[in-house]
Amino acid sequence: MNPIANEEKMVKQGAKDKYPSRVKDKPAVLKRKDAVLYSEWSEQSPLSREQSDFYEKNGFLVLDSFFSEKDLSEWRSELKKLNDVYREEEAEHVILEPESREVRSVFAVHDNNERLKQLAAHPRLVAIANYLLGSDTYIHQSRINFKPGFTGKEFYWHSDFETWHVEDGMPSMRAFSCSISLTDNFQHNGPLMVIPGSHTKFISCVGRTPDNHFKQSLRRQEYGVPDPDSLEMLSKEGGIHTITGKAGSIVLFDCNTMHGSNSNISPDPRSNVFLVYNSKENKLQEPYSGQKPRPRYIASRE
Amino acid sequence: MNPIANEEKMVKQGAKDKYPSRVKDKPAVLKRKDAVLYSEWSEQSPLSREQSDFYEKNGFLVLDSFFSEKDLSEWRSELKKLNDVYREEEAEHVILEPESREVRSVFAVHDNNERLKQLAAHPRLVAIANYLLGSDTYIHQSRINFKPGFTGKEFYWHSDFETWHVEDGMPSMRAFSCSISLTDNFQHNGPLMVIPGSHTKFISCVGRTPDNHFKQSLRRQEYGVPDPDSLEMLSKEGGIHTITGKAGSIVLFDCNTMHGSNSNISPDPRSNVFLVYNSKENKLQEPYSGQKPRPRYIASRE
Repeated sequence: MNPIANEEKMVKQGAKDKYPSRVKDKPAVLKRKDAVLYSEWSEQSPLSREQSDFYEKNGFLVLDSFFSEKDLSEWRSELKKLNDVYREEEAEHVILEPESREVRSVFAVHDNNERLKQLAAHPRLVAIANYLLGSDTYIHQSRINFKPGFTGKEFYWHSDFETWHVEDGMPSMRAFSCSISLTDNFQHNGPLMVIPGSHTKFISCVGRTPDNHFKQSLRRQEYGVPDPDSLEMLSKEGGIHTITGKAGSIVLFDCNTMHGSNSNISPDPRSNVFLVYNSKENKLQEPYSGQKPRPRYIASRE
Repeated sequence: MNPIANEEKMVKQGAKDKYPSRVKDKPAVLKRKDAVLYSEWSEQSPLSREQSDFYEKNGFLVLDSFFSEKDLSEWRSELKKLNDVYREEEAEHVILEPESREVRSVFAVHDNNERLKQLAAHPRLVAIANYLLGSDTYIHQSRINFKPGFTGKEFYWHSDFETWHVEDGMPSMRAFSCSISLTDNFQHNGPLMVIPGSHTKFISCVGRTPDNHFKQSLRRQEYGVPDPDSLEMLSKEGGIHTITGKAGSIVLFDCNTMHGSNSNISPDPRSNVFLVYNSKENKLQEPYSGQKPRPRYIASRE
């Protein structure tokens, strides 16, 4: 179904699209219409008041030394196994680098891997998720990203929510990512960059989404790409924050925080586990693009 | 002439190649056979003793606020002119980005542009050059590099000397680059990265150089590329230093210091003027590749 027909259908159903994107010829900057923090802070909250306020204001939060060296070494050996397996053997939920065919991402690790399933259910992470989203939560998406040394490619700026909304039918901004660093993040190995405060605005992108483009888009982004003027405006307002730190640190960032990373020519690889927690009150609908939903290893519909 | 025939010819002439590269099937790490600093430090030297020692040990030196905002604004408007002209009009000494066809480098700026000619002859720069190289000097190469915002591509690791030696016939390590920052260098906009101490070793690279490949190589490097193991060894020994700082700072780095930069997806462009000073006692010979010399806008033979 084309996006306009779909918009008409949704309007008929009373399901108005709060965050239209990829439907107009010009980009637009819309206000966020959802809360960022869905709970009142109290002494029992799993984050300090300062941490909580920082997250709400900036759209991200770094927690250093969240995991121990012992945890990390277990996951690293798991990762090595995954990397070795999937370099040899194609699998639907494994994305390779466009040029080198090195493993770039493995999806649905919380489903397919016992150790990473335990990680996603980690009591302190779940407590933070339930606190931030003010409800019970579930894993919307999980993946491991490998950014190899020497040839790690960039990830261009994007809001995850833009894609999850348009392509997966996530109705509201009530989800966040937890990125767990399995390797040290230096200035020089293409660390995560975020634009503080960008989560308060929704950048409506131009261009229609072709059918079944997701396989390609996970390697190289072509749709749902924010325009340069909007990015410049956001970065002028909030600056660009480069997240460096030791392995074992975690970064929590709102589903609409603009983020990306540069390439990595250094010998130091970067590996991260990404867990996306979504509120059980924000379950996926029909994709707002009017297209058929992406596979479950990318967007869980439980 | 093929490289082996050329090697024989050079041996006959008594011109032994101190730094063979692109002649063997395996990479090799050779010791530097030349001085780094060619003068004795004294109170009259144009660098302090600490600066001088730092340069000799690490192979680079940053001098903050070397140029004033007034100098910078003049050069910036000159740059804007150059960028506007060459985006429209192809020229031999102008290199475009491989994909976007944005201007990536303009060569021979000290020859073709009055303002940049004055810059190259700046008395304090010339005094530093004569001090570091222990003789009179001349400009071996000059260029402006533009790294646009959003789409700036990486420059992979390389030693300039490896190329200047093999492709231009520079006999000894008695040259250095001065990079003048016309824009602020942040962590996030693909700043220069150097490996401290790497100038004391020569990485002999594998692979022969095809004829006339230089046009392509200035856009994307394929020959004279150091191998991953050597890079890992160098970076384990010296680390990787990311050079950030304000516009107006300059970086001096030895011709054999391993350097490179990551991509730049941020909105902040990076522009630098590079001036390469060579000792008048280190004038170019026949290229050690046995091939014909590259054009003068890349390697001056005065």
